[in-house]
Amino acid sequence: MGDMGGYRGPSLGVLQEAGVQVGDVVELDVGGELVKGTVVPRYQYNDDSHLVIKLKSGYNVGISVSRISSVKRVSAGERPAFVSQAPKPRSDLPEVAILGTGGTIASRVDYRTGAVHPAISSEDLYSLMPELSDIAVVKPEIVLTVYSENLEPGDWQKIAEKVSEAVSRGVRGVVVTTGTDTMGYTAAALSFALRGIPVPVFVVGSQRSSDRPSSDAYLNLIGAVSMAVSADLSGVYLSMHADTSDDRLAVHRGTRVRKNHTSARDAFQSIGVDPVAFWTRSGIESIATDAPKRGKGGFVAEPRFEQDVALVKFYPSMSTASLEAMAQKGLKGLIIEGSGLGHLNRKNIPTIKRLMDSGGVVCMTTQCIWGRVDMNVYDTGRDLLSAGVIPLEDMLAETALTKLMWVLANSRSPDEAKELMLKNLVGETTERSQQSRAS
Amino acid sequence: MGDMGGYRGPSLGVLQEAGVQVGDVVELDVGGELVKGTVVPRYQYNDDSHLVIKLKSGYNVGISVSRISSVKRVSAGERPAFVSQAPKPRSDLPEVAILGTGGTIASRVDYRTGAVHPAISSEDLYSLMPELSDIAVVKPEIVLTVYSENLEPGDWQKIAEKVSEAVSRGVRGVVVTTGTDTMGYTAAALSFALRGIPVPVFVVGSQRSSDRPSSDAYLNLIGAVSMAVSADLSGVYLSMHADTSDDRLAVHRGTRVRKNHTSARDAFQSIGVDPVAFWTRSGIESIATDAPKRGKGGFVAEPRFEQDVALVKFYPSMSTASLEAMAQKGLKGLIIEGSGLGHLNRKNIPTIKRLMDSGGVVCMTTQCIWGRVDMNVYDTGRDLLSAGVIPLEDMLAETALTKLMWVLANSRSPDEAKELMLKNLVGETTERSQQSRAS
Repeated sequence: MGDMGGYRGPSLGVLQEAGVQVGDVVELDVGGELVKGTVVPRYQYNDDSHLVIKLKSGYNVGISVSRISSVKRVSAGERPAFVSQAPKPRSDLPEVAILGTGGTIASRVDYRTGAVHPAISSEDLYSLMPELSDIAVVKPEIVLTVYSENLEPGDWQKIAEKVSEAVSRGVRGVVVTTGTDTMGYTAAALSFALRGIPVPVFVVGSQRSSDRPSSDAYLNLIGAVSMAVSADLSGVYLSMHADTSDDRLAVHRGTRVRKNHTSARDAFQSIGVDPVAFWTRSGIESIATDAPKRGKGGFVAEPRFEQDVALVKFYPSMSTASLEAMAQKGLKGLIIEGSGLGHLNRKNIPTIKRLMDSGGVVCMTTQCIWGRVDMNVYDTGRDLLSAGVIPLEDMLAETALTKLMWVLANSRSPDEAKELMLKNLVGETTERSQQSRAS
Repeated sequence: MGDMGGYRGPSLGVLQEAGVQVGDVVELDVGGELVKGTVVPRYQYNDDSHLVIKLKSGYNVGISVSRISSVKRVSAGERPAFVSQAPKPRSDLPEVAILGTGGTIASRVDYRTGAVHPAISSEDLYSLMPELSDIAVVKPEIVLTVYSENLEPGDWQKIAEKVSEAVSRGVRGVVVTTGTDTMGYTAAALSFALRGIPVPVFVVGSQRSSDRPSSDAYLNLIGAVSMAVSADLSGVYLSMHADTSDDRLAVHRGTRVRKNHTSARDAFQSIGVDPVAFWTRSGIESIATDAPKRGKGGFVAEPRFEQDVALVKFYPSMSTASLEAMAQKGLKGLIIEGSGLGHLNRKNIPTIKRLMDSGGVVCMTTQCIWGRVDMNVYDTGRDLLSAGVIPLEDMLAETALTKLMWVLANSRSPDEAKELMLKNLVGETTERSQQSRAS
């Protein structure tokens, strides 16, 4: 058997039945219309129900196998190089902005070199994911090309500004693609910067390189675009595979989600709450009743972040060197990921006090992931509280970091900042009764 | 109804039926023998099947309600203060060492003052937990009285030495009680220091203060002592509630366990593997076939740890200040809790290289909790690998910290240390096929 160029499932079946290999010229009967062209390899976004045919014009078209009533092999051919042309979008569909930041999801593999290139035009995207052209007029834009571990608060600002621009020109929804390493942090950061946004923003990525057969990229992007068009939601969400099968996405609140597995498709989990909704090809389901609906009217992004904020995870015997160094450099904010209910070792408390005396805002979260801090139970907690450390309830440490960065850039005094840190702005803390796991 | 002094369940039923309140003098028929004394309050370890009676001699005896055939109220009385005396142990039972380090589990509440005192004698323990006297001759010893967030590697050494002493004198098993905040770190540290120990060591604690009706202290300690006597296991385990009900403990491998909830009874979870076993009052069940069995013969603890090791959790925009300061102080080892498959931002890589150039050992783990690092997938990972950073597979960051502390104190060169870090010594890493969650 020859190289089948990444085809699988029903689309592979159609090719095999007709004795067709990638590179062959074929003639298809598509609902009575004859389409002639060359079968193009599909190494990346493995939708299994479309053939991609390069027409004589040079355009690539994606054709659903359900519409193909016959396949005739006309001649053997050279396997063509990847060409990024695709059918024209249907102008009657709503517009969705896709903002790329450098993750693997909006990339494609050059068939000859194996190199990964960002997919930069709508044509590229339609070619990679023919289904998209039936859902929306997508307007892709590469905002950044940065591995997500190198993203900085200034990059979040840039993304937030681009989202805001898209909303101003009336898009139906926005999809942000990014690397999964820090996707939880990015979703949280955008949640604060885009507070009050009237449409939904879906942050998506891919856990598997898009040139691997098990890539989750396709479903994640199709689902996000589909929800950007039709879901009655506003605000920032992270939407990724709900389980290890390739048919359901979970929609997580941007402030309550964490990457809990290095490599699994369902690496992202809502913490302390249920996902806001689920998505399958049949549509969106189980939308939480308290999820904000689409809105209208004025929206102004607040995209700035204070960079000089640190996150420190406490561990037994943690020396004072690290905090001292940061305090001496005039750190403006500190999130402590304490042990248990919100503790750290006694020897670091004087440094924390000095940091606060010089105007720094210090907050406590927990390294347990689940549950909430309670600093009234033990001496250490009470000492930290009375020194002025702010207990952040069940806020995730990662969310707390982005919130403190945002709060410090958008408040006029440490006191106002403290007040904002204790206020639930975009679902970043839950009520005790709301939690899905007993605490 | 008067104050029932903490009694509940069957024991409360017996008292109510006889119209007896705490402080009253009673005469009990216990298997034909008459026992006369004052009903003592039981505010702390809420076993519900024993009455505690203060005899005229001053001793407190715990009597199983199943052995009581009648209760006669002799007279009303003052409620007595807590007195820590109990029945003599049965010398035919095996000996179990209980080493206290300052957590809430081995403490009791003074009935009058509400203050929490450590339970320092076997009599105290038998009085608090009458069941113990039927299981083992317990030899409690307070090694430390330290909140667990303040524990240092030197404290782990002290505990390991005490365990070693107990093994030398022939105990059947050891129970270490400690605060839950850093209990996972302690279990991991002891796993390395006590490698090759021929008996089981159970690290236990209590998630709820022992004066709260929902305390898990009783079951955790009874279960640990019971397993110390009868489980065919060797090595270090952390054993705590398996779920939110109060009847089953999970036995976790000391190197694969993490506190994943701030306050729930079942806060501790095995990561990437199943628990080694479960325990109920019917005995131990589902022991993993690969769990090490009890051994014989020579055992020498290696209790030393290098203190100058740090754990740093990476976050977006992490500045170089913290690592630079630690590097300048001559840090000997560093565990990075990277993002995703094992990454951190590019700007910190030069500092890490300098740290390694000056002899420091730097290892990579992941903040995802589940899954394993794989630094061959992306540029950043490959750069770190080629710089000499050691990828620690699916080792927990907390376990990695204690292992590196131990390895640096027990190896002669950075090269030997690196070799040991990559070797699976006491189940701290798993084979890919072994993981209980797909990776």
